[in-house]
Amino acid sequence: MTAPGSGMAASVAVPLLLLGVAVVAAGCGYKSCPPTRPDLLNVHLVPHTHDDVGWLKTVEQYFYGVRNEVQHAGVQYILDSVVAQLVAEPTRRFIYAEVAFLARWWQLQDEATRDTVRQLVEQGRLELVGGGWSMADEAVTHYSAGLEQLGLGRGFLRRALGPCAPPRLAWQIDPFGHSRQSAATFAQMGYDGLFLGRVDHQDKAQREQRRELELLWRTSGSLRSPGSDLFTGILPNVYNPPTGFCWDQLCSDPPVVDGDSEENNVASIVSTFLDIATKQAEHYRTNHIIMTMGSDFHYENANLWFKNMDKLIAHVNAQQANGSRVHVLYSTPSCYLWELHQANLSWSLKMDDFFPYSDGPHQFWTGFFTSRPALKRYERLSNNFLQICSQLEALAGPAARDGPYGPGDSSVLREAVAVAQHHDAVTGTEKQHVANDYAKQLAIGWERCQLLVSNALSSLSGTKETFTFCNSLNISVCPLTEASSRFLVLLYNPLGRRVSWPIRLPVHGVSYTVTDPRGQPVPSEVVPVSIVTHGLRGNGIGAMQELLFQASAPALGFSTFTVTRSPHGHPRVPPVQPPVLPQPWDIHNEHLRVLFDPLTGHLKEIQNLAKNISLPVFQSYYWYNASVGNDESSQASGAYIFRPNSSEPIPVSVSKRISTSLVQNALVQEVHQTFSSWCSQVVRLYAGQPYVELEWTVGPIPVEDGWGKEIISRFQTPLQTRARFYTDSNGRQILERRRDYRPTWNLSQTEPVAGNYYPVTSRIFIKDKKVQLTVLTDRSQGGSSISDGSLELMVHRRLLYDDNRGVEEPLLEPGADRRGLVVRGRHLLLLDTVQAAADGHRLRAQELFMAPYPVLAPGGGALPTGPSSNACRSSQRCAGSCLPASIS
Amino acid sequence: MTAPGSGMAASVAVPLLLLGVAVVAAGCGYKSCPPTRPDLLNVHLVPHTHDDVGWLKTVEQYFYGVRNEVQHAGVQYILDSVVAQLVAEPTRRFIYAEVAFLARWWQLQDEATRDTVRQLVEQGRLELVGGGWSMADEAVTHYSAGLEQLGLGRGFLRRALGPCAPPRLAWQIDPFGHSRQSAATFAQMGYDGLFLGRVDHQDKAQREQRRELELLWRTSGSLRSPGSDLFTGILPNVYNPPTGFCWDQLCSDPPVVDGDSEENNVASIVSTFLDIATKQAEHYRTNHIIMTMGSDFHYENANLWFKNMDKLIAHVNAQQANGSRVHVLYSTPSCYLWELHQANLSWSLKMDDFFPYSDGPHQFWTGFFTSRPALKRYERLSNNFLQICSQLEALAGPAARDGPYGPGDSSVLREAVAVAQHHDAVTGTEKQHVANDYAKQLAIGWERCQLLVSNALSSLSGTKETFTFCNSLNISVCPLTEASSRFLVLLYNPLGRRVSWPIRLPVHGVSYTVTDPRGQPVPSEVVPVSIVTHGLRGNGIGAMQELLFQASAPALGFSTFTVTRSPHGHPRVPPVQPPVLPQPWDIHNEHLRVLFDPLTGHLKEIQNLAKNISLPVFQSYYWYNASVGNDESSQASGAYIFRPNSSEPIPVSVSKRISTSLVQNALVQEVHQTFSSWCSQVVRLYAGQPYVELEWTVGPIPVEDGWGKEIISRFQTPLQTRARFYTDSNGRQILERRRDYRPTWNLSQTEPVAGNYYPVTSRIFIKDKKVQLTVLTDRSQGGSSISDGSLELMVHRRLLYDDNRGVEEPLLEPGADRRGLVVRGRHLLLLDTVQAAADGHRLRAQELFMAPYPVLAPGGGALPTGPSSNACRSSQRCAGSCLPASIS
Repeated sequence: MTAPGSGMAASVAVPLLLLGVAVVAAGCGYKSCPPTRPDLLNVHLVPHTHDDVGWLKTVEQYFYGVRNEVQHAGVQYILDSVVAQLVAEPTRRFIYAEVAFLARWWQLQDEATRDTVRQLVEQGRLELVGGGWSMADEAVTHYSAGLEQLGLGRGFLRRALGPCAPPRLAWQIDPFGHSRQSAATFAQMGYDGLFLGRVDHQDKAQREQRRELELLWRTSGSLRSPGSDLFTGILPNVYNPPTGFCWDQLCSDPPVVDGDSEENNVASIVSTFLDIATKQAEHYRTNHIIMTMGSDFHYENANLWFKNMDKLIAHVNAQQANGSRVHVLYSTPSCYLWELHQANLSWSLKMDDFFPYSDGPHQFWTGFFTSRPALKRYERLSNNFLQICSQLEALAGPAARDGPYGPGDSSVLREAVAVAQHHDAVTGTEKQHVANDYAKQLAIGWERCQLLVSNALSSLSGTKETFTFCNSLNISVCPLTEASSRFLVLLYNPLGRRVSWPIRLPVHGVSYTVTDPRGQPVPSEVVPVSIVTHGLRGNGIGAMQELLFQASAPALGFSTFTVTRSPHGHPRVPPVQPPVLPQPWDIHNEHLRVLFDPLTGHLKEIQNLAKNISLPVFQSYYWYNASVGNDESSQASGAYIFRPNSSEPIPVSVSKRISTSLVQNALVQEVHQTFSSWCSQVVRLYAGQPYVELEWTVGPIPVEDGWGKEIISRFQTPLQTRARFYTDSNGRQILERRRDYRPTWNLSQTEPVAGNYYPVTSRIFIKDKKVQLTVLTDRSQGGSSISDGSLELMVHRRLLYDDNRGVEEPLLEPGADRRGLVVRGRHLLLLDTVQAAADGHRLRAQELFMAPYPVLAPGGGALPTGPSSNACRSSQRCAGSCLPASIS
Repeated sequence: MTAPGSGMAASVAVPLLLLGVAVVAAGCGYKSCPPTRPDLLNVHLVPHTHDDVGWLKTVEQYFYGVRNEVQHAGVQYILDSVVAQLVAEPTRRFIYAEVAFLARWWQLQDEATRDTVRQLVEQGRLELVGGGWSMADEAVTHYSAGLEQLGLGRGFLRRALGPCAPPRLAWQIDPFGHSRQSAATFAQMGYDGLFLGRVDHQDKAQREQRRELELLWRTSGSLRSPGSDLFTGILPNVYNPPTGFCWDQLCSDPPVVDGDSEENNVASIVSTFLDIATKQAEHYRTNHIIMTMGSDFHYENANLWFKNMDKLIAHVNAQQANGSRVHVLYSTPSCYLWELHQANLSWSLKMDDFFPYSDGPHQFWTGFFTSRPALKRYERLSNNFLQICSQLEALAGPAARDGPYGPGDSSVLREAVAVAQHHDAVTGTEKQHVANDYAKQLAIGWERCQLLVSNALSSLSGTKETFTFCNSLNISVCPLTEASSRFLVLLYNPLGRRVSWPIRLPVHGVSYTVTDPRGQPVPSEVVPVSIVTHGLRGNGIGAMQELLFQASAPALGFSTFTVTRSPHGHPRVPPVQPPVLPQPWDIHNEHLRVLFDPLTGHLKEIQNLAKNISLPVFQSYYWYNASVGNDESSQASGAYIFRPNSSEPIPVSVSKRISTSLVQNALVQEVHQTFSSWCSQVVRLYAGQPYVELEWTVGPIPVEDGWGKEIISRFQTPLQTRARFYTDSNGRQILERRRDYRPTWNLSQTEPVAGNYYPVTSRIFIKDKKVQLTVLTDRSQGGSSISDGSLELMVHRRLLYDDNRGVEEPLLEPGADRRGLVVRGRHLLLLDTVQAAADGHRLRAQELFMAPYPVLAPGGGALPTGPSSNACRSSQRCAGSCLPASIS
């Protein structure tokens, strides 16, 4: 994980190294490509459909073609129709990307149809591209889930469609900008190339001029090239056909009329096409160009497309007899790439990424980095649980699926998580009912995985507990712990190293005894549940306090803790008002001290005690006033696009002094800050933990004043950051960002705030030569450094206008009470030297996305009390009946 | 031609006599019908598409799918798709009606596809219905053209698709009301039944109650039943599928989701369908019901329809195991009719027709009887010329096609006339650009026929004249006659009897000599061209006078007249002011005297001199103020619908006295009346002709005042007509009409004017016990008798609002100058005894729709001067090389 620090990547001559192994190994693919004409300009028509795995309709609605009044789209018919039309004429080709739909369709086909499809794949007439279960977003997805969904898709293709099916080409034609880590994943998985649809309009225009729409992407700063280099092509028309050549039922371009008809338009169609091809060739470097012939949910009636393309090909090529230098053919991205490979050129090199994306002045697609923060967290947490579920499935073997708790199944959650990676799912750019459905599918997946986890834990522990899963611990709700005077906590740790993790459980008692797997007591405290949490649960519902203890669990294993209510004990210490002093007051643990301004109640300074670093940090919440369009541009802020109507955000707290209270005991020190009725924060130090936790609760965002609001947490420091800041790439790489600057092209900035926002999948930091302030997130958010020394993250947004990219709903997230969602999350703040910072944020980031997971049980079953005889060692891979180290 | 005078047709028990001959003779058809279940309610699903032969787009645009932004429709794809889907699953069936499109598609298919289609037809899986080139309108079409287009369609089907193809079922599902003559044509051609979509909503509701949606139509008052009886079925949902079961790409009903899916809706779909079927069965008499599964331009992607119907059939029939009494199957109207035949029931009898049609209160589709009067005239005239062209093609043999003037061809005009019969063509209910195209196609047909006529006349007459066709004689424009001092006029007469016909040709000379084929002089006059005609031609263009003579031509033959300008002669008599007298003045000939009111200039009285009848007739022009919608109904008057905002029309002439002038000579007497700057009339008596000709010129209708206007010519007499009047049925039958009354159902009248309008294809009359006043028209018009003794015809209309039936254009007919069209036409007024009236109006009506046609030539070619040795006699049929009696 290194910052490339590239600046403008020079146009370095790098030989094209792609294709070698894959071609020979597969024994199919490139050699089935159609013949081309070396003496002519070859136009590769690539018939394709782009089938969003949910957007305006749910996945099932899209598949079957339900709710066509919302959007006319039925994928079942697309695949029916394309297969029939490919069979009808052997020169035709088609590519398909979204495995989620293909697998859904495959279930319903008879064996004859499946054989037909396999043959079409073997013959290269039907080519799979991308290969993911969905076409994943690249800004807000974590690489871990990204790998999962690629593996799911490719696995299906290999099993169902044979060895020729798994794609060699990545096909990311619609995601709203492109990450280096996504490209790195493709490169490292052996993909030969990547095609993109959306890059910044200025970037594209400049690349057209320089003929650099095709390039070599060095996808890693740490891995060696050429293994991490990936040929990358930017398509000419996003993923649409050239203007006038859209022959789908969803389009209205005139068909080719070539008979004896008054509507005969062959001459004009051929001439227009030749003109377009010639102009397009000016932006590319070889005598081959590619045209995507299709768009969203096209080919439901493939005859329209193919019949007209058949005619186009015939009539355009017929002009060769009259001296035309253009040859048009059915092709695929692979076959196009094969020709580029033959050209044996050197391509310009790119080290950075393609964020942020804008499709016009003032139109930065940086709002979706934050849109639907609750869904973004649920997706992240779901992948976390999926990893746990998968691990336990592997560890427990068949008993995990077929156990006493019912049929356990990880595939439902795996598919739901894979679907959620889609670039209109976790992005938050779908209609509300579709967002609801993504969450519902995840919840169904959780249920099936919880059965699996129960089966696995039962099998591994040799007990039959009534395992309970408390899904609402984020608002301190758990019926078992609230009602029981004795219960068990099984903490499973999916990481490959031991972790220690604070456990908070709602309880009604004032004192509890906690013992570890060996029966040794574990320090615990009963702490008050915050007033804010009370409010979230509704009138007087739930426990008034939480039991807190630090639990430790072994690598890829679980620990069991026993909790017993003490018949007597000290009542909890209620929160107190912090001291009213002229000098700052603080909270601290052995690693850190956090100071607060006595006048305003704001965070004021952080000290790393071991490193002797002291950094003034002012932190507070603000809101950007969402643009509804203005004289410069009609663009409104919306689900996709972030556009504040002023670069100056407005403080959430209307008074200078925010209300605060203090909780302090041996295990935790907390400052509760209230910025407004809908925005609060707990600044927290756990004993022994080297980070400051900022637990924010934001919402319902009020919009009754007619203004959409985009809420940020901003940190202001005196660090000399020289316009630079750093954000991660899908949780796996770090890229340097520079305000009002792009490394490979000349930026004309139109949005001083939105144009400097970048996706923060897991972390963002600023630094000077010595000190680094890092913020880790529990989900993807948009972030930036709008002025030197400053760092901000957008945590929530609520908008009153649609941003005109197709959703046709404002991002209101009404929630059950229609007042708007309340969202709670955590920022972990790390202060360290620049040299040591990575060691800290890497580990903490892992613990955030692969957090241990507590399973509860009333106790009473026969639980193992000592180390299992065949426990896995942490250095050893577990498989089959090998039990994890359940106790250590 | 007799009036049925039926009154309410009693529910007479009449055995179903259909089917007998056709079934046995064809050796295919009914016996390929699917099995049904005698113990269950059988639901016959009839998959179909309704493909308008022009409406919002032209025929070619519909065929290819051009201009899909106007309406998504491409018939080429429909036929492609349906054939493929029929082949895919043998139980599926489909019916198709519009031969114009089928023939267009057929041209482009390879032999394998044609064979496939022939097999589908033979197996009854693809059934042709209707069989016309288009689905002809029934209100404004003439039976002559109707026969032509049925013959054209059926001929194609027989030749291309084999003996099973020509339909046994008439399928008039969209025309806006239904005529008795149309049904008679089908009956007399041997059709077994007729299905209708649109009948008056009150009529339908009452028939539903009485279970009389299926009936026996006695289609002729003069021909014997059962030969003229026709089974007639009224479809349940016009021609649409039941609500919720529209599975075309153009619909948005949910598909059948029957897999393991959250969207699974089988239970609700099956239950809804069973409910609909059961309710529908309550309106019909047997355990068989029919459902039309399709609509306008459906089945472009037939997979959607068929895949979902396959599932519907499977799931509905599966319920039989649970006691359901409903059996659903793919079927056709023929197979449905076959089951009705098996039921051996008696059906109620109907003698009248289905006009006018209304689909709701205040929504009478009686505007289209007049809409686009210029197109209506051009269509009528084109069929007239087509008959001439066809006759000459038969008379001259191959020389007519392959002659010295170029390739002659009657098929282009025949197809154009057939297309023009379509229920959105001659009706005037198409978009403006489509109306333009219909006219253009007719004009192209004229050109090809004119070549044929030239070839034929040259071959028949043995000469090589430069034949000239003056298409603008209606505005007195003809370059040849204007420029030449000597020319020939060849008058071809397509009727089977000799006719005498006034010829008017624009000339510049003041005196001409006209000689007949024998060289005998024919009386002629030079008369002034009216000031109105001058205005129509533009500034000072064209001749100031016309040469007039009465030309006679033999049955199915032509006469040649020689016209020579006299070097000297009397200058023409200019029009004079009529006498200003206190008593009436008149014009007269040997048959009639027409009197005018000296104060107002209006027609006042007509006398039949031979019969000694004298009838006061006041005639003038009025306009109805078109409704734009009001409190009672939002319905506006439009291309389809006539709805005046008051029952009292407004006089066109703002002053009581209209301006008049008089032309009188030995051959003609004319009174020129000017009602306004845009409405004038010539009242004319030709020497020897037994009618009063009213040549009206109306337009551009001014609408700048914001009011749409519907112009009528109204005749007011003292006849005691007892609410009755008489209109023809497609020019072949006469039906009695009664104000505010329908013979077979109880009318609740909502529009006292529009609800009493009827189509006048060729004539309308009123009478008392002795005297009949008949008006013959030169095109179809709407007409009525709004009060006793009154008779009116709507001659032109111009409207500012669309009437919400899909055209989405107001009927503005802008014309080249965007001021609106000027339309000129003729009413022939006959006054006779009731007993003798038919003898007169029948002959005159024939002469109007099969008028002789003048061909011009400069002369100089070797023309025959005596009777041809092998001329046909009028009693003899001509064929092959037999020459017509060119001179007699």
